Amino acid sequence: MRTRAAVALEAGKPLEVMDVNLEGPKEGEVLVEIKATGICHTDEFTLSGADPEGLFPAILGHEGAGVVVEVGPGVKNLKPGDHVIPLYTPECRECPSCLSQKTNLCTSIRGTQGQGLMPDGTSRFSMLDGTPILHYMGCSTFANHTVLPEIALAKIREDAPFDKVCYIGCGVTTGVGAVINTAQVEAGATAVVFGLGGIGLNVIQGLRLAGADMIIGVDLNNDKKEWGERFGMTHFVNPKEIGEDIVPYIVNMTKRRGDLIGGADYTFDCTGNTTVMRQALECSHRGWGQSIVIGVAAAGAEISTRPFQLVTGRVWKGTAFGGARGRTDVPKIVDWYMEGKIEIDPMITHTLSLDDINKGFDLMHEGKSIRSVVVY
Amino acid sequence: MRTRAAVALEAGKPLEVMDVNLEGPKEGEVLVEIKATGICHTDEFTLSGADPEGLFPAILGHEGAGVVVEVGPGVKNLKPGDHVIPLYTPECRECPSCLSQKTNLCTSIRGTQGQGLMPDGTSRFSMLDGTPILHYMGCSTFANHTVLPEIALAKIREDAPFDKVCYIGCGVTTGVGAVINTAQVEAGATAVVFGLGGIGLNVIQGLRLAGADMIIGVDLNNDKKEWGERFGMTHFVNPKEIGEDIVPYIVNMTKRRGDLIGGADYTFDCTGNTTVMRQALECSHRGWGQSIVIGVAAAGAEISTRPFQLVTGRVWKGTAFGGARGRTDVPKIVDWYMEGKIEIDPMITHTLSLDDINKGFDLMHEGKSIRSVVVY
Repeated sequence: MRTRAAVALEAGKPLEVMDVNLEGPKEGEVLVEIKATGICHTDEFTLSGADPEGLFPAILGHEGAGVVVEVGPGVKNLKPGDHVIPLYTPECRECPSCLSQKTNLCTSIRGTQGQGLMPDGTSRFSMLDGTPILHYMGCSTFANHTVLPEIALAKIREDAPFDKVCYIGCGVTTGVGAVINTAQVEAGATAVVFGLGGIGLNVIQGLRLAGADMIIGVDLNNDKKEWGERFGMTHFVNPKEIGEDIVPYIVNMTKRRGDLIGGADYTFDCTGNTTVMRQALECSHRGWGQSIVIGVAAAGAEISTRPFQLVTGRVWKGTAFGGARGRTDVPKIVDWYMEGKIEIDPMITHTLSLDDINKGFDLMHEGKSIRSVVVY
Repeated sequence: MRTRAAVALEAGKPLEVMDVNLEGPKEGEVLVEIKATGICHTDEFTLSGADPEGLFPAILGHEGAGVVVEVGPGVKNLKPGDHVIPLYTPECRECPSCLSQKTNLCTSIRGTQGQGLMPDGTSRFSMLDGTPILHYMGCSTFANHTVLPEIALAKIREDAPFDKVCYIGCGVTTGVGAVINTAQVEAGATAVVFGLGGIGLNVIQGLRLAGADMIIGVDLNNDKKEWGERFGMTHFVNPKEIGEDIVPYIVNMTKRRGDLIGGADYTFDCTGNTTVMRQALECSHRGWGQSIVIGVAAAGAEISTRPFQLVTGRVWKGTAFGGARGRTDVPKIVDWYMEGKIEIDPMITHTLSLDDINKGFDLMHEGKSIRSVVVY
C-alpha cells in the first residue's frame, strides 16, 4: 500500500513529506493507522545528526497513537479496530530481560530495532522508486500508517483521545514512570526536578501523584515557574538568581525539622547536562538520597563525582521509558489520564498537520512549545 | 586512671606505646577494657597522613572487642561485665537518620566524633604531662581501656572469642553487610568482587551466605586465588593475564543461558581505585546490575562513566560499615560466626602484643597479612 510520511532523508535537513510504499504485516506484525504523534527531543537529536547511531533515510517519530488495520499471521492479542500506542521499548514477556522481572528493557528485538529494521531484518517502508527507508526506534510514527511487531504495541481503551494519549508513548510515561517505577517515591518525600521541559513537568506531576511534600523545580528560565506550579511544583529555583552554588542551596532548603543535614530524598535530571547530573546527585540526602538520570547526554559526555558521595549512602540510577513495561503499564497510564489523575492537555501546546511537521521542530528550537502534536 | 596505649603522635611516624591518662565515663558513657583489636587499612590511611581529616596526637584503632568496666550516669542498656564491640558508626535510634529507617549512618554524634572528641566536646585521654590526646572514629581501640558513648557499643554474647570477633567491628561487617544489607543479594545471583584483601574476602563469604551461584574474584595477585576459594569464590580472574579489557571479559563470562548480553547481577569494588570502580559498574548487567563501592578512594579522586550506563538500568551505590545498624546487626553477625555461618579464624593471619603493634602495619605494607590482631 501507499501512505503519507515525513521522511528524514539526511541529517541536518528538514523532513520531507511524501508518499511512500508500505508492505503489509508479516508474521507477528501489525499494520497500524497512526492518528496522532508527538514530536520529541529524541527525534530532533537524531535528525540533527548528533545521534551517533542515527541512520538515514528513515521515518522518525516514536510517540504515537492509532488503530489496528490488519494483523499478520500468528498475532494473538490484537485485532483490527483495537486502539494502540506504539512502544519503542517492547515487552515480549519471554526474553531473559522480561523474565528477570528486574527491568523493562526487553531485549528480544533490540538488535534489528537498532538497525532500523523489523525483527526479520528487513524494512517495510520504501520510496516510490523502491529505495528502502528505515524504521526508527521500531515505531516510525511520522507516517500515517506503519508496521510494528505485536510485542511493541500497547492496547488501550477506545474512548481515549489520540491527540492527547500519543504523548504517553514517550514523554508522559518517561516522566511519571521515573517517579513511580524507578524511584518508587513515597508520600511525604522531598524531591528536586532539574529542567522543566516536557519530561520535567511530567516528573512533577508524577511526584504530585505519589504524594511528595516538597517538589522543587530548577530551571534557568523563570517562565517555567508558572508551568511547574500548574502540575504540582511547590518551590522554584533559578540557579542564576540564588547567588551561591545550587548544591548547598538545595541541601539547606530541604533540611527537615531536627535534621542537622539536608538534601532531597529524590532528585531527577531532565536536562541531559552532565554537570547538572552531578549537582542532582550531590544535593540528594546523605544516607538515602536517590538521583535518577533521565536526560540524554551528548555523545561521549561523562558524569563524575567523588565516590564518597556514594559511600555515604547516595544512589545513582537512570531510567529509560520511565521503567515502564509498555504493554502492562501504558494502558494503566492512559486510565490515569482518563480518570484525571494526571494531566496532558495543557502540555500539548501546538497541534499541527503532517505537512507542517517541520514547524513543530522550529517551535521546539525556539523553546515555544512544551509538546507539539501532529494529527493525521 | 592510667592505661597503656599506642599513640599516633604525628602523621607518618610509627605509633608510640606508652602509659596515658584516661578519665572515667561521663553521662551516657561507658568505660571498656579492650581485649583485642584489629589493625585496619583505615588506621593506616590516617597514620600515613593521606587522610585529610586526620588529627594528631590521637589513639587510633576502631576494630575492637572488650568488656564493660564501668558505666556513667544515665547508661541504661549496659552494665559492668557485658561483652561489647565498639561501633565507629553508632546507632542512637533517635536521630533523623536512625528514624528514617533508610540508612545506618546515625548522625547523633557525628560532629564531635569527626573532631576526635566525645559528644560533650572534650577528650577522655591525655598524656602523663596533661596534653590532651584525641579519640579516633569514636573508638580508640589501640588503648587497653577506652571510653565510648553507650550508643556506640554493641552488646554481644559472652562465649565469643575477643581475638576473633574484634574483626566484626569493621572488616567482617563491612564486607558481609555490603552483600546482605546494601546489595541485598538473592540466591542464584552472579557477582564479581574486585580486590581480594580482607574486605573482598568478607564480601565473598557474604555472597556464599546469600547463596550466590557465580562468585568471581578479581585480583592482580595470583596468590589470592587460594584465599578466595577458601571463602566461596567460584572463579578467579587476574586482569593482567586475560589479554583483553576486564569489562567485556566479565560481561562475556557472566552471560547466562539464552541471554544475548552478559554482565553480573552485583559487583563490588574493594580496591579504592576509581578506575576499578568504573570497571565494576560497567561489567554489571544492563537493566538491573548493581555496583557497590566499598573501597575508600584517595583524597580528591573521582569516579566517572557515561550516563548511558545508568539510563540502561545499572545502579551505582556505596556502603559504609556494610549498611549495618551496629547495635542491632553486629550481635547477629557474632551469632553467625559462632554458628559457623561465616568464618573469621583463617583471616586472622597474625596475632601480636600491643608492644609489637607497628609490626602489624609492616605486615600490611608488605601484603603478608589478611588481618593482624593485637591481643592485650
